[in-house]
Amino acid sequence: MSKGLLIGVGVGPGDPELVTLKAMRTLERADVVAHFAKAGNNSNARAIAAQYLRPGTRELPLLYPVTTELPADDPSYRCAIDQFFDASAAALADHLKAGKVVAVLSEGDPLFLGSYMHVHVRLMGRFRTEVIPGVTAMSGCWSAARLPIVQGDDVLTVLPGTLQESELERRLRQNEPTVVMKLGRNLPKVRRALIASERIRDAVYVERGTMQAERMMPLAEKTDDAAPYFAIVLVTNRWWQA
Amino acid sequence: MSKGLLIGVGVGPGDPELVTLKAMRTLERADVVAHFAKAGNNSNARAIAAQYLRPGTRELPLLYPVTTELPADDPSYRCAIDQFFDASAAALADHLKAGKVVAVLSEGDPLFLGSYMHVHVRLMGRFRTEVIPGVTAMSGCWSAARLPIVQGDDVLTVLPGTLQESELERRLRQNEPTVVMKLGRNLPKVRRALIASERIRDAVYVERGTMQAERMMPLAEKTDDAAPYFAIVLVTNRWWQA
Repeated sequence: MSKGLLIGVGVGPGDPELVTLKAMRTLERADVVAHFAKAGNNSNARAIAAQYLRPGTRELPLLYPVTTELPADDPSYRCAIDQFFDASAAALADHLKAGKVVAVLSEGDPLFLGSYMHVHVRLMGRFRTEVIPGVTAMSGCWSAARLPIVQGDDVLTVLPGTLQESELERRLRQNEPTVVMKLGRNLPKVRRALIASERIRDAVYVERGTMQAERMMPLAEKTDDAAPYFAIVLVTNRWWQA
Repeated sequence: MSKGLLIGVGVGPGDPELVTLKAMRTLERADVVAHFAKAGNNSNARAIAAQYLRPGTRELPLLYPVTTELPADDPSYRCAIDQFFDASAAALADHLKAGKVVAVLSEGDPLFLGSYMHVHVRLMGRFRTEVIPGVTAMSGCWSAARLPIVQGDDVLTVLPGTLQESELERRLRQNEPTVVMKLGRNLPKVRRALIASERIRDAVYVERGTMQAERMMPLAEKTDDAAPYFAIVLVTNRWWQA
C-alpha cells in the first residue's frame, strides 16, 4: 500500500464547537482537505470546519453533478451519481498515490449516510483509511430540542423520508421512537404518514439543529411544507410523561 | 426559575480526543461536575473527561445502588432504580437552587440511552437545561471497524440486546442494517437470534470502540460469550459489495 492516508472526518451537525478535538487536530495536519458540495454552492461541511483549516491548506472541492432534472429513481440519475463518485475517488487517489494525508470533510458522522462512504468503499482496498466519528445531525437535533429519544428497552428506527408513504406509515404505526431524515420535498408525504399513523402529535420538526439559523416546532404547528433536505422530524413516545 | 443551569455533557465513545470543543469548554466553566458510576467502580465518563476537568473542580459522584441480586424485570429493581434517580435529581437540585452551573457527564450522547436523561426529565421543568450532544458509542464502533452502516434509502434499527430472543430474531429477519447495543450477558441470546435469522455472517463484534483496549472481530469468529455491557454488534447488508 502507498503511504497515502485517507481520513473521513466527521465535523458534526453544524455548530463549529461540536467538532471533536481529534477532527480539529486532523484538519491541522492534513495535506489536502476535500469537501463535497453542489456545483455553485458552498460546502456545508467546509463552513463548519473553516476556522480549523490551516491557512494555505490545499483544498479539493468535489462538486455534485447537476441532476435536478432527473428523478432519484431514474437509472440515469444513479449512473450520473456513480460516475461522480468514481471521479471523486480518482481525484482523491491522485493525492493518496503521492503519499499525502487526505481528509474528507463529512457533515455529522462520516459513515452514517452522506457522501464520504461512497469514496471510502472505492478506496479502502487500495489505501490506508481512518475514520473520525462525529456528532450526528440527529443527536444535534434531539439535543437542541432537549428531547430524550430512547430509554430502557426502546428500539430506535431511523427512516429516510424518501421511503414510500405506505412504508413510512407502516413503520410509524409500530409506535416506537423514530427519527425521520432527508425531509426536503418529502415533508408533505412524511406529514401525511404521521397523521395516518396517529403520531403527528408526537412529532417535532427541527431545522438546522445546533446552527445559528436553528428552528424547531411541533410539526402539527408548522403551517407550511417548506423544509431543507437536512431538516429532521423526531417522533417520541414521551416515555417521561407516562 | 433559579439561575442554576443543568448541562448534560456528552463525552463521546471513549477516546478523550473524541470530546467536542463545546464539551471541553463547558467542563472548564462548570461549578459542579457530576458523574454516574457503579458503587466501588470509577465512572467511565469521568475517565474520558478527566484531562479536561479544572483542578479543584467540585465533583458529585452519583453511585448506582447495588441491584445485581435482582433481575432487571423485577418490580423491586425498577423501584430501586427510580429511587436512585429521584435521589440523584435531588442532589443535583441542591446545587442548581444555589445558582450553580452543574455539568452531568454522559458517555456517548446524553439523550441517547444512558442515565443523564433520567435526571433531565426530573429537573427540566424546574431549572434551565442545556444538552451538549456527543459522538455515540455506535458511531465510535462503526468508525473503528470502518464499516459504512447505512446508505441511500436504508432504514437503521438500533436494538437493545435486552429484548426477547424471538423479538431480536424477528427484527433481524427484516434484513436491514442493525446495531445491537447492551450486550453483556445478552450476547449468547443475540448470537442465537443472528444464527436463526441467517445474519451471523454479517455481524461484527466491537468491544470498547475507540478506547485503548478496543477489540473487534467477526462475531462468527468469537469463540467465547464474554462481553462487556457496552460492547456492540454491527449487522450490515454490505451494500458496497452488492
